[in-house]
Amino acid sequence: MLSRYFPILNWAPSYDRDTLSADAVAALIVTIMLIPQSLAYALLAGLPPEVGLYASIAPLVLYTIFGTSMTLAVGPVAVASLMTASAVGELAARGTPEYLGAAIILALLSGVMLVAMGIARLGFLANFLSHPVISGFITASAVIIAFGQLKHILGISIEGHNLFEQIASLITGIGGTNLATLAIGAAAIGFLVWARRALAPLFQRLGLSEKLASGLSKAAPVVAVIATTLTVWLLDLQSVGVAIVGDIPRGLPSPTLPAFDAELWNSLLLPALMIGVVGYVETISVAQTLAAKRRERIDPDQELIALGAANVGSAVSGGFPVTGGFSRSVVNFDAGARTPAAGALTAIGIALATVFLTPLLFLLPKATLAATIIVAVLSLIDTGTILRTWSYSKSDFTAMLGTILGTLAFGVEIGIAIGVLSSLALFLGRTARPHVAIVGRVPGTEHYRNVNRHKVDTTPGVLSIRIDESLYFPNARFIEDTINDAVSIDPEIRDVVLMCPAVNMIDASALESLEQINHRLSDAGINLHLSEVKGPVMDRLKRTDFLEHLSGSVFLSHYAAELALRTPPEPAAA
Amino acid sequence: MLSRYFPILNWAPSYDRDTLSADAVAALIVTIMLIPQSLAYALLAGLPPEVGLYASIAPLVLYTIFGTSMTLAVGPVAVASLMTASAVGELAARGTPEYLGAAIILALLSGVMLVAMGIARLGFLANFLSHPVISGFITASAVIIAFGQLKHILGISIEGHNLFEQIASLITGIGGTNLATLAIGAAAIGFLVWARRALAPLFQRLGLSEKLASGLSKAAPVVAVIATTLTVWLLDLQSVGVAIVGDIPRGLPSPTLPAFDAELWNSLLLPALMIGVVGYVETISVAQTLAAKRRERIDPDQELIALGAANVGSAVSGGFPVTGGFSRSVVNFDAGARTPAAGALTAIGIALATVFLTPLLFLLPKATLAATIIVAVLSLIDTGTILRTWSYSKSDFTAMLGTILGTLAFGVEIGIAIGVLSSLALFLGRTARPHVAIVGRVPGTEHYRNVNRHKVDTTPGVLSIRIDESLYFPNARFIEDTINDAVSIDPEIRDVVLMCPAVNMIDASALESLEQINHRLSDAGINLHLSEVKGPVMDRLKRTDFLEHLSGSVFLSHYAAELALRTPPEPAAA
Repeated sequence: MLSRYFPILNWAPSYDRDTLSADAVAALIVTIMLIPQSLAYALLAGLPPEVGLYASIAPLVLYTIFGTSMTLAVGPVAVASLMTASAVGELAARGTPEYLGAAIILALLSGVMLVAMGIARLGFLANFLSHPVISGFITASAVIIAFGQLKHILGISIEGHNLFEQIASLITGIGGTNLATLAIGAAAIGFLVWARRALAPLFQRLGLSEKLASGLSKAAPVVAVIATTLTVWLLDLQSVGVAIVGDIPRGLPSPTLPAFDAELWNSLLLPALMIGVVGYVETISVAQTLAAKRRERIDPDQELIALGAANVGSAVSGGFPVTGGFSRSVVNFDAGARTPAAGALTAIGIALATVFLTPLLFLLPKATLAATIIVAVLSLIDTGTILRTWSYSKSDFTAMLGTILGTLAFGVEIGIAIGVLSSLALFLGRTARPHVAIVGRVPGTEHYRNVNRHKVDTTPGVLSIRIDESLYFPNARFIEDTINDAVSIDPEIRDVVLMCPAVNMIDASALESLEQINHRLSDAGINLHLSEVKGPVMDRLKRTDFLEHLSGSVFLSHYAAELALRTPPEPAAA
Repeated sequence: MLSRYFPILNWAPSYDRDTLSADAVAALIVTIMLIPQSLAYALLAGLPPEVGLYASIAPLVLYTIFGTSMTLAVGPVAVASLMTASAVGELAARGTPEYLGAAIILALLSGVMLVAMGIARLGFLANFLSHPVISGFITASAVIIAFGQLKHILGISIEGHNLFEQIASLITGIGGTNLATLAIGAAAIGFLVWARRALAPLFQRLGLSEKLASGLSKAAPVVAVIATTLTVWLLDLQSVGVAIVGDIPRGLPSPTLPAFDAELWNSLLLPALMIGVVGYVETISVAQTLAAKRRERIDPDQELIALGAANVGSAVSGGFPVTGGFSRSVVNFDAGARTPAAGALTAIGIALATVFLTPLLFLLPKATLAATIIVAVLSLIDTGTILRTWSYSKSDFTAMLGTILGTLAFGVEIGIAIGVLSSLALFLGRTARPHVAIVGRVPGTEHYRNVNRHKVDTTPGVLSIRIDESLYFPNARFIEDTINDAVSIDPEIRDVVLMCPAVNMIDASALESLEQINHRLSDAGINLHLSEVKGPVMDRLKRTDFLEHLSGSVFLSHYAAELALRTPPEPAAA
């Protein structure tokens, strides 16, 4: 029971030296990767760089205690950072203590809500974010994020509340580009793009194992950080206007709780929920993908609690909202992490960096961090999925496009809301006008298929009609009309058999419609029968007097119905 | 083409003397019934009584031109009057010209929106109001309306924005009851209740035909009007504080258009839409019920246009929102109306009454009109349906209860919104965790059913699983988990057959889940097969590379799958 809420109890007792050394190697590699990422995502969220480091310590330790994934790596990620910047940016000015305070409260609220949802076992709600919607808002966020970083690459300022205003601002301000900044930024982007494609194969050709080559290639951002910092130092680029990270407070954050301010907390509630849910969906996708590879299982509801605890931990230690990151989790997995202890070890690594390395980051150009972000998020733009969705389903594509355009124009929250609501509306619209087929028997079998698609045999005088949807209020009238129309075509019909394998539910409205249909057909001298009604649906019909009023019978299989209704009519086989 | 928008062209050319005399008889009976109703519903809407008469002239003529139902009678009805009072009451004080003006604009906006929806063929949207929701808000409205009329019966004033405040106000004010008013009101209620139950049988026992007896009994409210008016006159009850209708302007309304006021019109848009849609749903239900009895067809989209035109006509002639009324349509039908011309003839009857009878209504007590309303609406409280819904489906009952409580506490608009949203949420929640059955073959047939409900045969090593829902994003992960769990129970399984007769759609998210399932099963040495995939679903799968990746086959019928997978495995039968 205790181990349900503290999954650490499942693996810690059997933790041994072997596992420790595997976890330690993975932790080292993830630490090296995470340092520039943490700084960069803090910058993206509009926060001082050290906040990114703070958000990469306590949350990792808490996930080690509460998490069920053996390999998930939590910390600051791009989309949550963008959402933080957009939520907090409406309430306080960048660089003020109020801005930082609001970001901390956002993490706290988001964490508390996730824990509450986990205890209430509401993990299934995240399923209402469909893949096309997720893919749509991630693509749109990547565009917004990458575009937002251009100001650091160009060394100009870009203003505007949405992408269109920012594009206008970029066009106006592009003349003021700082060439030294641009040179550093462009070089860093070029190097990182090259490293992403060519570094691992190069290492392999130099004789390294595939795993090691791949692990080492993830250190490319660290190389970019060191190289550009040295360049700034050697050429004194700071004096020609290259923006640098500057002074980072040395030492670990001390735990504090943000002061309560009803109005501020209230206006952060909705963004906190959105960041929490979006972060959770990303976390659970990563965790499930990796767990499946090793035949491990994760508990979606406990993951809510773990991610919530991580966010509360981030808030208490002066950090901002965190999430399970895709690329760092894959690195952790590939580097051989075996238990969540790798996360705690990574936290130690980041803590050491926070204490000892921060002075070395003084001359780090912001353009390098921007380059890291741009290269990371551009890989999130998934044109393949967009094209596949277009060719597979226009409904899914419509929801995806709505999400992309909504996110670009109004931000992630509204984009996602448009996506979820339009996916649901499109689904409901579909169920309101279901596919209906007149069916006949495939010769030599007891199987019935659509007369328009298959060569089938039909029995004269018997209309076999299959409705491919649950019968419920949005389609109840449509079904009445459909059956009326189908019957009116052939005056010879004396039996209508409604084949119900796809009817998963009949609600009260549809039951009234069935009664109407039965009544009308009966008046016209036609019997209404049902076939292949499922158990749960039948249980419910038995509680009403519909079956007594039904002019025909209910048959277990459609074949039994046909046998019984063939002229001359025999006693019902049901 | 022209007759699609002007259905009068379908029946007017063959109109003859016989039809005219049938329509005229029906019109006479409906006119007698409609006079007190019109006055009463205007009173309910907080409007001067003559407005009820105005709303019963032009709308009827317009419905004659545009309507497709042969027997529907439009005019003021209880629920629309209540909704009018609630919408307009927030914007203007009762008895002011602004109040009347707002009611007229409400009818105009509502009419224009209905016409627009009809031209855009949006009639199907009304289907999203389920029967339990309709029944719930009608029941709650009836309670609100009946309670609201108590003030006229008691001769006291009742204040308050919702039912609870009004109950408190009633308790405070009940000491001031006017006994003469109460006597008249109670007598009228008693008489009307008695007449409803006993008058028609009495007439029949006196030798009248059933039809005539039933028609004459509908004149009971007119008898109550005449009797109580005479009582007031004879006993001079006006002087002891019995409230009377008073001076009604004589003569027909002159056509006018309300002045445009952006702010006012804007705040009436939503109520106008709600009144229009609710009225339309009531209209279409009545029209379809009556049309079915005579095997006539109505066109739901044209009905939107007809009802819209009726409302525009009401507005232009100084009336308020109108709807197809249930009881008057039934009377019209029973009295033998054959064409919508009966409506135009009724309009002539009401117009004559407006010109000649209004002076006679001066001493009519308001308590009599209140009694008419109370007796009419109490019959709308349908406890039978509430109980039946409870026993049939807890989901439907939940939506109904939400509608009733929402309507009582916050009004019809919010009550309906709660009902529609909760019905949809309950449906979506159901589809998110669908029913899943492991199936086996019913001996001696090719039919497969749930192993837990039927005596069936299964093939060792083959897991046949039927998912009773379309596969789409809310249930995609649930299905992954379900199949994982089902497979983990039996280590002997080497083939999983997903039986898909209930799968009406596979969206992009579910397709990814299927790919995941296929991948994971494949890693475990298990083949995934599909059976009974429907044509439209298969068409779409063929556009992807899923079928190439699928480790197993797709079988036309589940029986074919079992034949092929029985050891020793034979070549696939698909």
